[in-house]
Amino acid sequence: MRQEVNAMSSSVGENLRVTIFGQSHSAAIGMTMEGLPAGFPVDMEKLNRFLARRAPGQNAWSTPRKEADVPEFLSGLAGNTTCGTPMTAIIRNTNTRSGDYSLLKKIPRPGHADYTAQIKYGGFQDAAGGGHFSGRLTAPLCIAGGICLQFLEAEGIRIRAHIAAIGGIPDEGNPEESVAEKEFPTLSDVQGEKMRALIAGKRAEGDSVGGVIECAVLGLPAGLGDPMFDGMENRIAKIVFGIPAVKGLEFGDGFAAAERTGSWSNDAFVPGEDGRLRTETNHAGGILGGITNGMPLIFRAALKPTPSIARTQKSVNLETGEPAELNVPGRHDPCIVPRAVPCIEAAAALAVTDALLGRRREINGRV
Amino acid sequence: MRQEVNAMSSSVGENLRVTIFGQSHSAAIGMTMEGLPAGFPVDMEKLNRFLARRAPGQNAWSTPRKEADVPEFLSGLAGNTTCGTPMTAIIRNTNTRSGDYSLLKKIPRPGHADYTAQIKYGGFQDAAGGGHFSGRLTAPLCIAGGICLQFLEAEGIRIRAHIAAIGGIPDEGNPEESVAEKEFPTLSDVQGEKMRALIAGKRAEGDSVGGVIECAVLGLPAGLGDPMFDGMENRIAKIVFGIPAVKGLEFGDGFAAAERTGSWSNDAFVPGEDGRLRTETNHAGGILGGITNGMPLIFRAALKPTPSIARTQKSVNLETGEPAELNVPGRHDPCIVPRAVPCIEAAAALAVTDALLGRRREINGRV
Amino acid sequence: MRQEVNAMSSSVGENLRVTIFGQSHSAAIGMTMEGLPAGFPVDMEKLNRFLARRAPGQNAWSTPRKEADVPEFLSGLAGNTTCGTPMTAIIRNTNTRSGDYSLLKKIPRPGHADYTAQIKYGGFQDAAGGGHFSGRLTAPLCIAGGICLQFLEAEGIRIRAHIAAIGGIPDEGNPEESVAEKEFPTLSDVQGEKMRALIAGKRAEGDSVGGVIECAVLGLPAGLGDPMFDGMENRIAKIVFGIPAVKGLEFGDGFAAAERTGSWSNDAFVPGEDGRLRTETNHAGGILGGITNGMPLIFRAALKPTPSIARTQKSVNLETGEPAELNVPGRHDPCIVPRAVPCIEAAAALAVTDALLGRRREINGRV
Amino acid sequence: MRQEVNAMSSSVGENLRVTIFGQSHSAAIGMTMEGLPAGFPVDMEKLNRFLARRAPGQNAWSTPRKEADVPEFLSGLAGNTTCGTPMTAIIRNTNTRSGDYSLLKKIPRPGHADYTAQIKYGGFQDAAGGGHFSGRLTAPLCIAGGICLQFLEAEGIRIRAHIAAIGGIPDEGNPEESVAEKEFPTLSDVQGEKMRALIAGKRAEGDSVGGVIECAVLGLPAGLGDPMFDGMENRIAKIVFGIPAVKGLEFGDGFAAAERTGSWSNDAFVPGEDGRLRTETNHAGGILGGITNGMPLIFRAALKPTPSIARTQKSVNLETGEPAELNVPGRHDPCIVPRAVPCIEAAAALAVTDALLGRRREINGRV
Repeated sequence: MRQEVNAMSSSVGENLRVTIFGQSHSAAIGMTMEGLPAGFPVDMEKLNRFLARRAPGQNAWSTPRKEADVPEFLSGLAGNTTCGTPMTAIIRNTNTRSGDYSLLKKIPRPGHADYTAQIKYGGFQDAAGGGHFSGRLTAPLCIAGGICLQFLEAEGIRIRAHIAAIGGIPDEGNPEESVAEKEFPTLSDVQGEKMRALIAGKRAEGDSVGGVIECAVLGLPAGLGDPMFDGMENRIAKIVFGIPAVKGLEFGDGFAAAERTGSWSNDAFVPGEDGRLRTETNHAGGILGGITNGMPLIFRAALKPTPSIARTQKSVNLETGEPAELNVPGRHDPCIVPRAVPCIEAAAALAVTDALLGRRREINGRV
Repeated sequence: MRQEVNAMSSSVGENLRVTIFGQSHSAAIGMTMEGLPAGFPVDMEKLNRFLARRAPGQNAWSTPRKEADVPEFLSGLAGNTTCGTPMTAIIRNTNTRSGDYSLLKKIPRPGHADYTAQIKYGGFQDAAGGGHFSGRLTAPLCIAGGICLQFLEAEGIRIRAHIAAIGGIPDEGNPEESVAEKEFPTLSDVQGEKMRALIAGKRAEGDSVGGVIECAVLGLPAGLGDPMFDGMENRIAKIVFGIPAVKGLEFGDGFAAAERTGSWSNDAFVPGEDGRLRTETNHAGGILGGITNGMPLIFRAALKPTPSIARTQKSVNLETGEPAELNVPGRHDPCIVPRAVPCIEAAAALAVTDALLGRRREINGRV
Repeated sequence: MRQEVNAMSSSVGENLRVTIFGQSHSAAIGMTMEGLPAGFPVDMEKLNRFLARRAPGQNAWSTPRKEADVPEFLSGLAGNTTCGTPMTAIIRNTNTRSGDYSLLKKIPRPGHADYTAQIKYGGFQDAAGGGHFSGRLTAPLCIAGGICLQFLEAEGIRIRAHIAAIGGIPDEGNPEESVAEKEFPTLSDVQGEKMRALIAGKRAEGDSVGGVIECAVLGLPAGLGDPMFDGMENRIAKIVFGIPAVKGLEFGDGFAAAERTGSWSNDAFVPGEDGRLRTETNHAGGILGGITNGMPLIFRAALKPTPSIARTQKSVNLETGEPAELNVPGRHDPCIVPRAVPCIEAAAALAVTDALLGRRREINGRV
Repeated sequence: MRQEVNAMSSSVGENLRVTIFGQSHSAAIGMTMEGLPAGFPVDMEKLNRFLARRAPGQNAWSTPRKEADVPEFLSGLAGNTTCGTPMTAIIRNTNTRSGDYSLLKKIPRPGHADYTAQIKYGGFQDAAGGGHFSGRLTAPLCIAGGICLQFLEAEGIRIRAHIAAIGGIPDEGNPEESVAEKEFPTLSDVQGEKMRALIAGKRAEGDSVGGVIECAVLGLPAGLGDPMFDGMENRIAKIVFGIPAVKGLEFGDGFAAAERTGSWSNDAFVPGEDGRLRTETNHAGGILGGITNGMPLIFRAALKPTPSIARTQKSVNLETGEPAELNVPGRHDPCIVPRAVPCIEAAAALAVTDALLGRRREINGRV
C-alpha cells in the first residue's frame, strides 16, 4: 500500500500562523499561534466563556460527552500578556473511550473520513474517535480564534455568527446583532424554537440534520485583503472549509447573485464618513476584488448533517472486502450547527487577523 | 493616506507554485510555475486550443477586444519539455486603449475593485483597465492550468466543467461529459439556446447576468488531499475564489445538504474495483474529511453578473467627495460565465496537481 | 515605542515543518513537527539517549541546572508509531528560578538578546532566563532532530558531528567516525583532554570560550537539494544559524577554498558504484550547485563563546540611560560547544529530512 | 531513473518574495518580486548602473561574453513607480552559443552542477550553459536586489560590499566605505593591484582563484530580524548561499570568535543616541539573538574558485561509464569575486528588505 504523508495541512495563515495538533484520543489536543503582536493582554475568563459556546452541553442537540475544555497555556505569554513568541495552548483528553471505536479501522463509517484516512495514511492513521479528523479538533481552533476575536474587538472589529437555517427552517432578523449570549444562537427565538423541535425529532428518529451559519464582520476598515489568491474570500474559505461538515460557502448574495443582473447586483457608491465611501446596498458582502470596501463582510457556510447517526448503515469490511452493516456506537450530535457557530466566528477571526497583521507600517512617512 | 503593500497574494500552491503577474495595460501579463516535474512534454497546440476557449470571441456574449493571447515561454522548457526549473510564460498586451480608463481613478466603478484598490494602494494602483484586478489576468491562470490539465490527463485524471446555469436557467445532463469542443459550453444545447437568448437580451438592455459553473474531476485516486486546512475543498476554494466574480462555492450537495438528514446525506460504501471502495451515491462530491474517496469530485462556483454594464450608474467623485454619475466606457462581456468555464477547469487543475505532487515516494520500501 | 511582532520565525521547513515554542521559564517548551510519513516507529529509548547528550550534566563544562528533559508526546503517534498528523512533544519547565533574572529587563547582558528583544517586543518580551532566546530551546530542536536521525538511519543516512576545535585547539581524526558514545565528543581523546583543560581554566577565570563543530552526513543519495535558495547549503544554514551562538558556517573547504585555485578545488569525477560517479577529492563537501553529489556532506559551524560569564561587565541601565555594571547571576556553561554537538546533528537531520521528503514519487512510471 | 521535481527553490522571502527564472540559454532570464509597497519610484538609470557592476566587462578578470543586460519591466509599475502588484522584469538571452555546450550532458564538468542536475532531473535538465545553475542567473537577483537597495537607501540604510581577499591577498581599510564607483571593488587600491596581478597570473595559467567578500549594512534600526530560524543571519544565509560558488559565511568575528573568550567577545553596552544603546566593540557584527542591535551588520562570504578553467580535467563519460578527459570550451571568468560584489549587496538588500517589511504597523496606537 502506498504511503502518503501529511502536508503542512494543519497550519494556516501568512502573517498569523496557527497550527492545530492532536487526535480525538491522544494525550492532548492544542494549537500553536505565531504572529500575534507582543503586549496584547488575553482575557482568560472571556476566552473560556467563548469556548463554552462550542463545548458539548446538557441539551437536546449535542453529545453527552463532557469535557471542561479549559486550555492550559504553555508558552507565548508573560503573565496573561502576549510576549511575541509562539503561543501554545493545550486541552488534555481525559474522557476518552477507546473501546467505542475498535471497529472503525475495519468497517469505515459512511460520511466520515475513516476510509479516506485509511487510504491516505496506509492504515497507520489514529482511528480512535476519528483521530485528527474529529470535530473535537475545533476546540483548539476556537482557542486561537477566541484570542483573535479579543484582538479584533480592541481594533473595533466585531464578528457575529448565527444559525441562518437548520433543515430548511430559516432564521429571521438582522445578522449584525449578536446572539453570543443565547443558548441556541438564532436571531429569532420563534424560528429557533422550530429548529429545536426539528432537531429533537431527528434525534428521536436516530437521524441528524444539517444547516447554514451566517457570519457578519463589522467595523472592518476598507482596504483589507489582497488581489487574486489572498482576497478575503480566499482567506476565509481556506479556514472555513477546515471545519468538518462545511460543504458550501458564499459571500454577499453568493449563489443568488448568479441569478441576478449587473444593474441589480452592483452596489452604488455614495459618500460616507471620514472621506470614505459607502455603498447603498451590500450585494457584494463587503468585498470587491478580494478587498474590503468598508461595508459589513457577510458570508454563509453550509454544513452537511452530522454523519454519525444511530441507524444501521451500509459499509464494507475492509479485511474481507465484503459488504457489512454498521451501527456506529458512541455519542452523537443530532445537529452540529449550533456548536459550530463559534467555530465559524473563530475561523473568520483568524482570517481577518491574518489580513490585518499583513498591513505594514507606513514606510518612512511617505505616502 | 496609509500605504499598504501587496502580500504574496498572486502566488498560490505548496507543491506546485504559480505566480500570476501583470496588469491589464502593462507590457505583458504572465505566470511563473514552479514544481512541475522535469521531463513532461507540453503539447503547445493543445494548450493554445485550451486558451482559445477563454479568449474573447466574435459572438454575442463576449467583449469585442481581440488579442491572440498566444503565450511565449521564456524559461522552464528544453524544447517543449519541462526541465524542472521555474517555467515562465508571458502574453504581450498589444491592444491596450488607455484612454478608455482615464476616469477610473476619479470615479470608481460600482462592482469593480477600483475603489478598494485605491484605498489599499494609496492611489498608486495601476488603474488602467482594472490593472492587476482585470479579468484578463485569468489568461495566465489558464496557461498554468492548461499545462496541468495535460499533466493530469497523462495521469488518467480528466477535468470537465460546464455552465450549470445562467440567470437561473439551468443546464441539464451528465456533468461527467465534456463540452470542451462546444462554442457555448452547456451539456444541453436546448438549455444553452435559452441561456444565449437571455444573454442577448441583457446585452440589448445594456445589462449583464451571472451564472453557475459546475466542474467534475474524474479519475482521481482515493487518498488525495489533506486534513483540516489543505483538504481538497480548501485547496480548490483558495484558487477558485481568485477568479474575478466568483462569490460562492459548494462541493457535492453543498447548500442543499444543509436541508437534508444524515440518513440521506451519508453515502453508503460498497465494494469497488481493485480492492478499493466506492459509494452508492455521491452526495459528498468525492471528498470526505478533505480527502478524495475515489468518486468524482464535483463542485459548483457561483459567478456574479459582470459589473461592467452600459448603463449610467451612481458613484462618487473621489476628488470632490460629491456624488457622480458614471458611464463606463470600453468593452464589456454581458455574461462572463461561458469564458470562465476553462478558468474553472484551470483552477481545479492547479489544485489537483498541487495535491498530487504532494504525494511523496514510498520511504525505503516500507509500508 | 514601536510595537513589532514575531514573524513565523520559530517554524522552519518546506516538506517537514518544525515549530519550536516555549520560553526558558514558561510552563513548558516543545515542538510540533508536520510532514513525517505515517507508519514510522519512534524508538523512545534511543531518542532519550540522544537528548541526554544535549542535557546539562555533572561535569566541568556545563551548567549545574538539571532537568530530566524527557519529552511527553501529546499527538502525532498511535502507540509509538507516527500516524501522519502533527506531532507535538513538550518538556515541562520544572526547575525555574525566576529570581535570578529580575534585573535583565533593566540592565541587558552583553552578548545576549536581552536588549534586542526589548527593542523588538517593545518591552513585552518574557525576559526570564532569556525567554524564547534561551539555549534551552535547543531541547525541542533535538526532539525533532532526534526523530529525524532515526528516520534517516532507516534510509541508510548517518549524521556524525564532533568538536572540531575549542579555543583554537583542533581535533584530529576522521570526521566520518561517530563520537556519540563519548562523554566529550572529540575524535581524538588526546586533543579532547587539551580542550577540557582549556575549558576548566576558563571556568576558573570566570570566563568562557568558543569553538567549532564539524558535521558529516554519510550515505546521502546524489540528487538531493535544489538549485538557488533551497540548496543543501541554504537549507542547513537556515536551521544551523537558529542555534544560539553560531556565527559562521562553511561547507567542504569553505573559507579555505577562497585561497585556492580552480585546478586544486575542482573535484575530479571518477566512476563509482551502481553506475553513479564519485569524486577523487571532496573539496566541495558533497554539494555541487546546491545538490548532493553522493559524497559525504561536510560542514563546520563556528560558535562564539558563551556570553554568560562570571565577570563584571559594562552595560546600561535602560530605566535611567546611565552606564551600569552587571554581574550576571545564575548558572553558566563555560563552553557550550560540547552540548551543541547533538544540536548540530539535529539541525542537519531536519534539513536533510526536509530535502528527502521533497522527493516526489515517480509520476505514472514515466522517466 | 528516478524522476525528481523542483521544489519552490528559486523563490525566497516571507514579506518580500523574489522568484528567479530562466536558464543560461532560454529565451530570457528574469525575476518576479512581490511585496514591495506601492508608490516607490524606481530610478531606472541608477538600477542600470548597479547592474553594470555585475555585467561582464572588457577587463582581465571576466568573461568576454557581452550582453547589455538591461532589464525590461513587464509588470508591477505604473510609469516607473511601483503599483503594489507583482513586478516582473526580464533580460533577453541574445548572445547564446549552444554549440559550446553540446558535451555537457555526456561528460560533466568538475566543480559544476552538470552531474548533480543530471541525477536530480533524470536527464531532462537544460544543460546548455549550465541552465538554471548558470552564474548568469545572478543578473535577475541583482535586478531585485538593486531595487531593494534603492528602497533601503530611502529608509537611510546603505549596503556596501568590497573584496576582502582574493587568493589569500587581503584588502585593507574601513568596510563602511563605498567602493561602488571603482572598477575593481577593493578599499585599498594597492591591495587591489596585487589581487589583479594574481588573477592575471591565474588566467595565464588557465586556472582560476577564489576569494572573500565582506559586506556592511549601515543605518539599520535596532530590533530587526526574528528569533530562531528567521534571524538576520538565517535570512542572509538563505539568500547568499544561493549565489553560485559561495561555500562559507560568517557574521561579525565569525570563525575567529570560535578561538576567543567571552570576556573578549561580548560587546559592552554604552549609552547611544536617541535613548538607544550602542556597543563599544562590534564582535557580534550587529546581531544578537538574530536581531539587529543598531550597530553595523557585518558579514563575509567565501567564494570558491571559478570551476570553469582552461585546463584538461578528469571526468567520466556518462554514456559509457568510462573515465574521460574534458576540456571545457567557452568563456570563463578567472575570478568571479569582483563581479560577485554587487550580487552580495543584492542578496543582503533582499534579506534586509524582507525583514524590514515584516515590521507591522502599530496596532491601534497601543504600546
